[in-house]
Amino acid sequence: MKFTAEINVMPLKALLDPQGKAVTSGLKKMGFTGVENVRIGKHITVEIEAEDADAAKKEIDLACKKLLSNPVIEDYHFELHELKMTG
Amino acid sequence: MKFTAEINVMPLKALLDPQGKAVTSGLKKMGFTGVENVRIGKHITVEIEAEDADAAKKEIDLACKKLLSNPVIEDYHFELHELKMTG
Repeated sequence: MKFTAEINVMPLKALLDPQGKAVTSGLKKMGFTGVENVRIGKHITVEIEAEDADAAKKEIDLACKKLLSNPVIEDYHFELHELKMTG
Repeated sequence: MKFTAEINVMPLKALLDPQGKAVTSGLKKMGFTGVENVRIGKHITVEIEAEDADAAKKEIDLACKKLLSNPVIEDYHFELHELKMTG
C-alpha cells in the first residue's frame, strides 16, 4: 500500500524563532498590523510504500526522529493518507 | 476576533526540489527503502486579529502573495482557525 505523509516540523514553542520574528516585523511594516507571533518551520511530504498504515506510521515516525527533525530544537507532527491508485 | 492561520508553502510540482531529492536519497541510504518523492517546503503559523474570518482570509492571502511565498517557484495553501480565548 502506498501512503503520503504530511509532516510539519516546527521550532519548539519555548525557543525563540528569529526567522519568524523577522517575518512578523516585516509584515507589520508592510501594513499587516493585525499580525502577531509568526513561526516558521518545515512542511515535508513523503510518499511511502508499506504493508499497512501502522507500518507506514512507524517508518515515518522513525524518519522524523532520525533525519527530518532535530528534537533538541524542533517538534514534529504528521498525518498519513492512503494514496489511491486510479485506473 | 483572533485567528491562527496554518500556511504551507511548497515548491511547485513542475519544479525540481533539490533539498527533497537529497533527503529522499539520504532516507534510502539509512534503510528507509519504501520512501519516494520527498518534497520540502515551509510551514508557517500566523496569529491575526481581524473583524471576521473573511477579513482574516483576505489579509493572509495577501501576505502569502506579497511576502511569504514566491509565486514563480512556490504555491501556498492555508487553513484558518478561530482562536478561542479562555477565562
